Amino acid sequence: MLPLTTPAFLVDREILQRNCERMREKALRSGVAFRPHVKTHKATEIGRLQHGGTVGPITVSTLAEAEHFARDGFRDITYAVPIAPEKLARAAALAQTVERLNLLVDSETALRAVESFHAAHGLVFDLYLKVDCGYHRAGVDPDDPDSARLALALASSPAVHFQGLLTHAGHSYNAVDAEEVRRIAAQEMMALSRFRALLGEDLADIVRSVGSTPTLSAVERFDDCDEVRPGNYVFYDHFQATLGSCGPADVAVSVLATVVGCYPDRGSLIVDAGALALSKDAGASHIDPDAGFGQVTDVALVPQRLRLIALSQEHGKVAGDSGEIARHPVGTQLRIVPNHSCLTAAMFDTYHVVDGGRVVDEWHPVRGW
Amino acid sequence: MLPLTTPAFLVDREILQRNCERMREKALRSGVAFRPHVKTHKATEIGRLQHGGTVGPITVSTLAEAEHFARDGFRDITYAVPIAPEKLARAAALAQTVERLNLLVDSETALRAVESFHAAHGLVFDLYLKVDCGYHRAGVDPDDPDSARLALALASSPAVHFQGLLTHAGHSYNAVDAEEVRRIAAQEMMALSRFRALLGEDLADIVRSVGSTPTLSAVERFDDCDEVRPGNYVFYDHFQATLGSCGPADVAVSVLATVVGCYPDRGSLIVDAGALALSKDAGASHIDPDAGFGQVTDVALVPQRLRLIALSQEHGKVAGDSGEIARHPVGTQLRIVPNHSCLTAAMFDTYHVVDGGRVVDEWHPVRGW
Repeated sequence: MLPLTTPAFLVDREILQRNCERMREKALRSGVAFRPHVKTHKATEIGRLQHGGTVGPITVSTLAEAEHFARDGFRDITYAVPIAPEKLARAAALAQTVERLNLLVDSETALRAVESFHAAHGLVFDLYLKVDCGYHRAGVDPDDPDSARLALALASSPAVHFQGLLTHAGHSYNAVDAEEVRRIAAQEMMALSRFRALLGEDLADIVRSVGSTPTLSAVERFDDCDEVRPGNYVFYDHFQATLGSCGPADVAVSVLATVVGCYPDRGSLIVDAGALALSKDAGASHIDPDAGFGQVTDVALVPQRLRLIALSQEHGKVAGDSGEIARHPVGTQLRIVPNHSCLTAAMFDTYHVVDGGRVVDEWHPVRGW
Repeated sequence: MLPLTTPAFLVDREILQRNCERMREKALRSGVAFRPHVKTHKATEIGRLQHGGTVGPITVSTLAEAEHFARDGFRDITYAVPIAPEKLARAAALAQTVERLNLLVDSETALRAVESFHAAHGLVFDLYLKVDCGYHRAGVDPDDPDSARLALALASSPAVHFQGLLTHAGHSYNAVDAEEVRRIAAQEMMALSRFRALLGEDLADIVRSVGSTPTLSAVERFDDCDEVRPGNYVFYDHFQATLGSCGPADVAVSVLATVVGCYPDRGSLIVDAGALALSKDAGASHIDPDAGFGQVTDVALVPQRLRLIALSQEHGKVAGDSGEIARHPVGTQLRIVPNHSCLTAAMFDTYHVVDGGRVVDEWHPVRGW
């Protein structure tokens, strides 16, 4: 029994540190710049662990994260979502308080908004061009001649310090095994080199920034790129373990829950961790149709023969055979390894840091936009 | 354009008030007690609107909600999730500060925990017995003789003021139309009457408390029950509109988002509302396989021929034909009517209250457990 109100979000400090070190060392060994994403955890304590105990370049997914980490001493930040024109004023204010705030664009419309802002206020923005390496979410098509024209427009705009090319192989999450992830990793890394080569000699040195936790976990070395931006690797999760990005023992987080209903006759338990504790991420259901909403374990993280089959707001419904159900009476604590740690972590205002079975610290992530 | 950082959660005050009034009047007209759920909104301003502008009995889904509303003057509270034994001390502390805090049990194990606490501390708990009316989440089986025995044990325990029977027809959410919802409503209301009749003359007056937004919206009058506990009806959402609990014009909430990527060639937009703004609730996909992750509308809430097909943490991916996509360039504001307003509201620390196209107030919900 851990003496915590449930549901509670637990972070295993030892595993977290090991995950942080392993990725950082791989980047150092590869000779590339390391700009880890902080969106998974949003906590400055973990941002420092990603850099071996100090501040360093980071990637963020919201301006609220950027402002929070800047206040805590992080001075070199990439905001890796295409900038909305309405957010330029806020970004500009932040940019003036740090060494560098890189923004992302992938359209002439956004470039025109940046130039209008520059004309009115004089600020020159550090910009990356977002490139689509196959995920087809955001980013320009590297095979479209218009994309090269946009890159050259960025390079020649007086409103812009053009920093480089940035891509994210989010389609690695749709892969079914590590072999397919490695193919996508090669595609991610080559996409930017190929595109940069089209831009001519003057732009031969702009940064090629890549990163997704599956692709960066699957390869032994980061080649054909200048900077990596992994994020989820600090925690990993049940999805990443199913995909093979990590082993089950590398997942640093779980949600502590209490059994509040036990129904052996109908083969189900109810725990007090529902959709607001776990998020409704369906996990790696394309690989494991029985993934449910997370992996049910006992307090010592030993997987139980139980499946978390449904979530309502504050109830999690767990299925199993009647004997297994009866072994988990009302009051039993269980731990749920989340499908998607980024979304689950964001449901909590407090992370309980555990080491050797004891709670040793509390960390508080930033929230909102 | 609304002058707000996106994503932002918008509440239409006029629709909210109309929804609140309609349900309250139906309860008054039916002559039953009205104990609305506050879990959907978690904001005391809306709790007061549910009672016509003042405090009144409420239902909560967490002790954090109970404590928050108690601080703001709500004195009669039902915590409608089976109590975890570890939470009894905290519930007891709260119970001593309000007129009534009803807790929920559905097992002998929980009753024994209550009796142990009573033996140690002397407190008598106000308890409801949770009954399963067909949802098969929590609650005792009303047709199992053990259930009647548990009810009688509650009635005779010196640790307990036995208040009544409580059920929730959550399976109404799996219905496909209003006709099926009405059948489930009848089942919900009759289940408790039938079960109470088994308990004998001494318990003929205990409260029968029912409630789900689909069932309570589908019927014109609340019969065969003593108390109703609807919650989602204050906001409704795209799910409820699809199911027929309300019309599209009755949905009081939406998420304001900005287009940050526009790709007519690939038939997609990216908006800055992702899984952390909307939640990943799949909505009424059993009725509408194209439900996606919410309904995309323009700022005036006119539905667009666009589908929100995927969410990552801070990106929403919207699909449409290339002409339709091109009509929503970078910088366009859209509004997403959420699939499940309870989960979406919980993602925001601030609700922006709009009236006549202007932001007129900000409300702040409670969060956590």
